[in-house]
This record gives sequence, structure tokens and C-alpha cells, in this order.
Amino acid sequence: MRNGDSSAVTVLGTGAIGSQAARAFLAVGLEVTVWNRTAARAASLVDEGAVRAGTAAEATASSPLVVACLTDYPAVTATLWETRDVLRGRTFVALVTGSPEEARAAAEQATAAGADYLDGGLQSGPEAIGTDTATIFYSGPAEVFDRHRGTLAALGPARFAGTEPGAAALRDLALFGLWYDAQLGYLRALETVRAAGADVEAFAPMAAAQLGHVVADAENTAREVATRAFPRGPADLGEHESVLTKLVELRSDLRLGTGDLETALRLVRNRIARGGGNEGLTAILD
Amino acid sequence: MRNGDSSAVTVLGTGAIGSQAARAFLAVGLEVTVWNRTAARAASLVDEGAVRAGTAAEATASSPLVVACLTDYPAVTATLWETRDVLRGRTFVALVTGSPEEARAAAEQATAAGADYLDGGLQSGPEAIGTDTATIFYSGPAEVFDRHRGTLAALGPARFAGTEPGAAALRDLALFGLWYDAQLGYLRALETVRAAGADVEAFAPMAAAQLGHVVADAENTAREVATRAFPRGPADLGEHESVLTKLVELRSDLRLGTGDLETALRLVRNRIARGGGNEGLTAILD
Repeated sequence: MRNGDSSAVTVLGTGAIGSQAARAFLAVGLEVTVWNRTAARAASLVDEGAVRAGTAAEATASSPLVVACLTDYPAVTATLWETRDVLRGRTFVALVTGSPEEARAAAEQATAAGADYLDGGLQSGPEAIGTDTATIFYSGPAEVFDRHRGTLAALGPARFAGTEPGAAALRDLALFGLWYDAQLGYLRALETVRAAGADVEAFAPMAAAQLGHVVADAENTAREVATRAFPRGPADLGEHESVLTKLVELRSDLRLGTGDLETALRLVRNRIARGGGNEGLTAILD
Repeated sequence: MRNGDSSAVTVLGTGAIGSQAARAFLAVGLEVTVWNRTAARAASLVDEGAVRAGTAAEATASSPLVVACLTDYPAVTATLWETRDVLRGRTFVALVTGSPEEARAAAEQATAAGADYLDGGLQSGPEAIGTDTATIFYSGPAEVFDRHRGTLAALGPARFAGTEPGAAALRDLALFGLWYDAQLGYLRALETVRAAGADVEAFAPMAAAQLGHVVADAENTAREVATRAFPRGPADLGEHESVLTKLVELRSDLRLGTGDLETALRLVRNRIARGGGNEGLTAILD
């Protein structure tokens, strides 16, 4: 049963992501068993060549590798419970967005039932699944990942995030968080210029150029954090303090809030008080 | 005196920005008078062809167009006071980062002394001044901007932000704010992966790709806000609620704070409660 070159795979959950995953496995010639709690949602996949199982346990028993594309970890937990008697010796992969704690709890539950467990974090929309542009992280025992990486590659490049079960979820959330910070920052900027009666569409190219500076500096910024060198860059902390102070004031009336710049401002002031006035913004992470 | 084709310009303040501005004006053949409160800082510009004035009033009296590159608006206010007797009929341009209120107060003070006033917001570092990559906004009376735009173009493309005196400062701050939101978001993501013991430098390219999604969608996002159409895009509000909830929890222990995702989450929940569960994130600005 512990055979990574298996020609059979099971997909639990056939929403947008699960359906695309099943298709991607079918496309590389695997025997695909599907199950969905609402059975009708798995019907069209049968026309495409998948086998439909009547229960989660039946579906799980059909393949050595089981990929769960469920709504959230509570759904994973329920499904692990329903399939507990057939899990032994199989590899269960949860491709779900959630917290590292939830991933760790699912890993414990699956391994207690005798399964190998990988946690997966998908950073792309369903349409990217099966293409090279999909970004999927996996965490769990390295040998389990190695055994199945060839099969999982059907979903897109398989990246190993680490052996700690929560590592994939954590990286996944970190990237989602970056998207929210940048997107909400952009919406806040649009809100600011709109409130002043300015044309938000004319503002877009300038905003894109501004975000481009963060992208262009991404490697340098990471190196500064990793090496704890904090050159002033575009501005020193004294200048950052001045602009952040004005921004906190400007944003006090905004619907989207201040973006928590107060916390950054406090860290900037603390660092200046400790002699870091000539350093750059990354110093606040020191 | 109200001649936009004047061959003379005065630069008040010769720090990094003022010095570059003076050089840019010299480069297009203008007669440039410079003044700095600490006189020695203007000395090297004399070797490059500028005339040094002993006082701010003397410098201001030398040219119909006066560009102030001072530290902040309090410095502008002080300089407007010192030059009040020679301001009549001249155009005073304050190229300073500050709030719209500060810009409006400076405009009042300058016009009370009989000067025309333009407020300038510089979105680039000193090194960009005099090049096509400089982004400089101006606000104030349109005819004053039109009269001087040819001369101001020596500093880089001159963009008109509107007649309201605070318009340039507001757009300037909106773009600075976007930079902080994105950069702090990136630092928060680096903090998250570092706390998990992961390699922050290996994370950088994925973060850059993630920011690229916001850049790629910038025009669509602005159009959604402008037209009040809120398609779900990469996720609907129900899915955003789920991820935002996990992120707020994940970030509760972060040094850089939550990024005020609580405010976004509250707006998302309000919108869902009013029937917007299938809309996209821009709906929270509606």
C-alpha cells in the first residue's frame, strides 16, 4: 500500500478546487475516485472518467493516496473520523486553507488512525491547478512528501515547506496576509483620493508604480532582515517617523482604518530612542 | 514680474532635494539663486554656477519663481514670514511632504503676502529629480501652474493634482501610505515565516509574485471602485471572512501588529449581513 507510484488517487470534496484537482489527476492518466458530501456535485466528473464512491470511507479505501479538498479543517476533521477504519497505511493530504494549529491537529488525528499525513497550502485559484503557475506548499514527513511528489506534481509544482505539520499553512497564510495588506492599502489609497474628489482610475498607474518599488526591493528587504543590516534605503527612521505621524492623522477618518500604522510608528520611535535614527525601516523587525 | 518664461529661479533650502533641484534648473540654462539657513550647505552649488544669497528675503527678491525645498511646513511657515515683504507678485512653490491642512495653511499665508502659491508633492528620491522618472504633483490655481509648468518641468514631469491647495499633499500622502501598507505587509509576512524558522530569503520571490497580483489587478480594482461594480474576483466575501479571521488570530502575537485587518473584517461582515456575500473585496469601500 505504501507505494508512491500508485496509479490510483482519491479526491475527497469536488468543489471548485477538488474538481480541478480530479481533472488534473485524470489528465496524467491516473485512476481517480471522487466523493462529495453532496453527491450530485461529483456527477460531471464521472462523465470525464472519474469513479464516484458512495461514502468517504469507500472513496478512501480505493486509493493509497487521498487528497482532501474540503471547505475547512472542521470538514477535514469530520471526514477523518468517517474514514478512520480505512486510513491505515494510506497517505492523507489536506489541501485546505487554515491555521498552523488546525493543520497540526489534523496531522495528529490522521496519524493516530495509522495514516501518513501531508498538509497542503494552495496559493492559487482553482484555474491554476494542473498548470505550472500553481503554487502549492506541502508539509509533513520528508519521506512521505518524496514518495508522493511525483503524483502531486500533476496539480502543479509541489514545494516542500518543512517537516513541521503547520509549516505549509503558515506560509500560505503569510502570503494571503501580504495580499490583504497590499490590497487593503491600495483600497485605502483609492479611498483617500476619492474622498478628495480625484479620479481613482487615473490614480491606478501611479499606485501600481509605487507597489512596484516594494516588489523591486523584495530581495534586498529579505536580506536585510536575514542579516540584520539596516541601511537607510529610501528614508531613515527619523523621516519615516515624520511621514507615519502625518499618515496616522490623515487616516483617522478613513472607513478602512489606519492600517495599524500606529504600531509601526511606535516601533520606529522606540528604535530612534535607542539610537537607530539613521537606520532604515527594516530595523523595526530587529 | 508675472512672467512664466523667466530665466531666473530661486531655490530655498539646499538639502538633498534642493541641491538636485538647483542643479536641474542650472542644467536647462536658468539663472539660479540659492539660499540655505546653514550657509555652508549652499557653497558647492556656487561652484556649479548658482548665485548664493545671504538671506531668504534676498534670495526670494532675486526671481519671479521661488521653489522651497525645506524640511517641513513649519520651516515653510518660518521662511514665508521672513520673506513676507518681497513676496508680492512672485510665485512661491513649496516642495514639501506634509498634510493637506499644512498645505492649505501655507497657501493662505503666501497669498496673504501677495504671492501666488503652488503646493508640490515629490514622490521620488532626490536622485530622480531632473529625470523623467520623477513624479511631482502640484496643486493650486490652474493658471499659475500653467504659467510655470515649463520651468518646473526641469525637475521632472509636472502633474497637476487640482486647484484645491491640499490636493498635491493628499495624493502624495496616499501614495506614501500605499508604500507603507505594502512594505509593512511584506515585513509582517517575513516576520511570520522567520518565527516559524523558515528561510526569509527563499520566501522573497513568492512574496514578490503575490504583490504582483495586486499590481496586475490595479486598474480593474480602481474601475470597480469607480463604477461600484463588485465582482467576486479571486474570492467572495464569505471566503474573505474566513481567511481574515484566521489572519487576525495568527497576527495577534506579531510584533508588527495585525495591520488593522479587524477593521476590514468588520466591514466584510457588515456587507455579508446586508446580502453581499457573493461580492468581491472592493465592496467594502461602497
